[in-house]
Amino acid sequence: MTADTLSTSRSAPGGAGGAAHRTDALVEAIDRIGSPVCVGVDPVLESLPAALRSAHSTPVAAIVEFTHSVLAAAAGAVPAVKFQSACFERYGHEGWTALEQAIAEAVRLGLVVILDAKRGDIGSTSAHYAAAAARTGAHAITVNGYLGPSGVQPFVDAGLGVFVLVRTSNPDSDLLQGARLADGRTVAETLAGQVRALGAPRLGARGLSQVGAVVGATKSSDGRALRGLMPEQVFLVPGYGAQGGTAQDVRALVRPGARTAGESGVIVNASRSVIYAGAGEPDWRTRMHDAAVEFARDVARVLSGP
Amino acid sequence: MTADTLSTSRSAPGGAGGAAHRTDALVEAIDRIGSPVCVGVDPVLESLPAALRSAHSTPVAAIVEFTHSVLAAAAGAVPAVKFQSACFERYGHEGWTALEQAIAEAVRLGLVVILDAKRGDIGSTSAHYAAAAARTGAHAITVNGYLGPSGVQPFVDAGLGVFVLVRTSNPDSDLLQGARLADGRTVAETLAGQVRALGAPRLGARGLSQVGAVVGATKSSDGRALRGLMPEQVFLVPGYGAQGGTAQDVRALVRPGARTAGESGVIVNASRSVIYAGAGEPDWRTRMHDAAVEFARDVARVLSGP
Repeated sequence: MTADTLSTSRSAPGGAGGAAHRTDALVEAIDRIGSPVCVGVDPVLESLPAALRSAHSTPVAAIVEFTHSVLAAAAGAVPAVKFQSACFERYGHEGWTALEQAIAEAVRLGLVVILDAKRGDIGSTSAHYAAAAARTGAHAITVNGYLGPSGVQPFVDAGLGVFVLVRTSNPDSDLLQGARLADGRTVAETLAGQVRALGAPRLGARGLSQVGAVVGATKSSDGRALRGLMPEQVFLVPGYGAQGGTAQDVRALVRPGARTAGESGVIVNASRSVIYAGAGEPDWRTRMHDAAVEFARDVARVLSGP
Repeated sequence: MTADTLSTSRSAPGGAGGAAHRTDALVEAIDRIGSPVCVGVDPVLESLPAALRSAHSTPVAAIVEFTHSVLAAAAGAVPAVKFQSACFERYGHEGWTALEQAIAEAVRLGLVVILDAKRGDIGSTSAHYAAAAARTGAHAITVNGYLGPSGVQPFVDAGLGVFVLVRTSNPDSDLLQGARLADGRTVAETLAGQVRALGAPRLGARGLSQVGAVVGATKSSDGRALRGLMPEQVFLVPGYGAQGGTAQDVRALVRPGARTAGESGVIVNASRSVIYAGAGEPDWRTRMHDAAVEFARDVARVLSGP
């Protein structure tokens, strides 16, 4: 895949025109690798290999080199990367410059780029955030939908793939997201209905919408209900492995009847377990690549399992 | 007020130590002006005075000069300004640099600075966002609490004043925030309970917490219920005037028994009606200052009204 394939506003056969191509491109990228995974680029200074840290005079310089290595390790091993915006923003405008350059590099390497920025505001302000994300060249963004559908729509209109936070993987997400409404649905399930409605006019050729959801791999029962409510959504899935999500939790999120990895409707994220694999070793770059390959294989096995 | 007064981590008498001083400083700044208002710094290129636009070769340069004029107009007229992060972020790292410089200028001018960035993630990531906000010198930030209290806590721990989105002013916020739970409370009211609990250990000398809430001036009945649930919270109030919020809506949000403007527990925001007052006129800078003064007087009258 090239950046052109992703950024061309071509009409998707059977879909809603150019607006749907982001998700079709993601599906194709997943099928090319054979596993629906992404590597989370969450560079935290204290966790970087010591040799790399001591080779640079500023935190940003160390993070730039580390991120370059993560992208080299990810290219060809996984279809997508997810940049944690906060890890760059904490270094101000220099961090933002580093993020812009890293996204451009990821696009050049043929990776699908998800900007994990959890933005969201009233519509007119969300339009500015959408413009900010689009100018980086990222293909998709995570969005907080607490304000309502009008706060999500501008990201869709900007042509970005959108992942709306529905059910996050942290334990205390239960307090609000798991609260039950008078009509029997949870807060997360109510939001799921809004996400499906937002995404309905934006279906791609493979039956998946430009508007997806963040659904943590935490509780199989919740996940299964959310899949039922969002059959056309790609689920960006944090929490697998390190945070306790099991193979069974991931399987509960897969679309029934999916024929390929791309059509499974999930993209499972791993960050620390991949990017810090072998961080104490001299061959950390090789170890990182091996961990990305192994992570992709593991998730492919999970999907083909019982 | 100087920047030092705000940034010194002094112990607040009767409060929870240094952590509470942000809100005490805000209360003092409001009482000095006599009106609980802030001017929203939301520079949008298309809305800037034409003469200013044509004097600059890049959008960012025009926005930098306009923002400088807004801050000059606001200083002395209002106690606080609220920067809309999205309006700067849309210009990438150059926009971020402009935001950093503008916040530094606002602090120098003695204004309390609220960064309206609506950030929020799982705890470890929120800590990075909190560090990003703190390094700009902003005194407070708006936070999205959909992920749970653990995603808000890092902003509190960083010593920032926090305004958690509870009830926003856009019409379709009703869909989720106004949805009623099985226990009879709305989603917004459930979140209000979490906000009060987060803020309880962080009360300042004037009885107000470091942790506040965003509550739009839209529906008096909702507002009154939320005030009952959050007696110690400062409410950052959008939606007054231009978006249809009335004097009665604002009065419903005021803490009963407040003795001063600072203790009223509200800070009412106006953006466009102030910063674009007279945008078509040669004397737009004077008009902007006059609009800020008039806005502060208007809200002071509202508070002293029936």
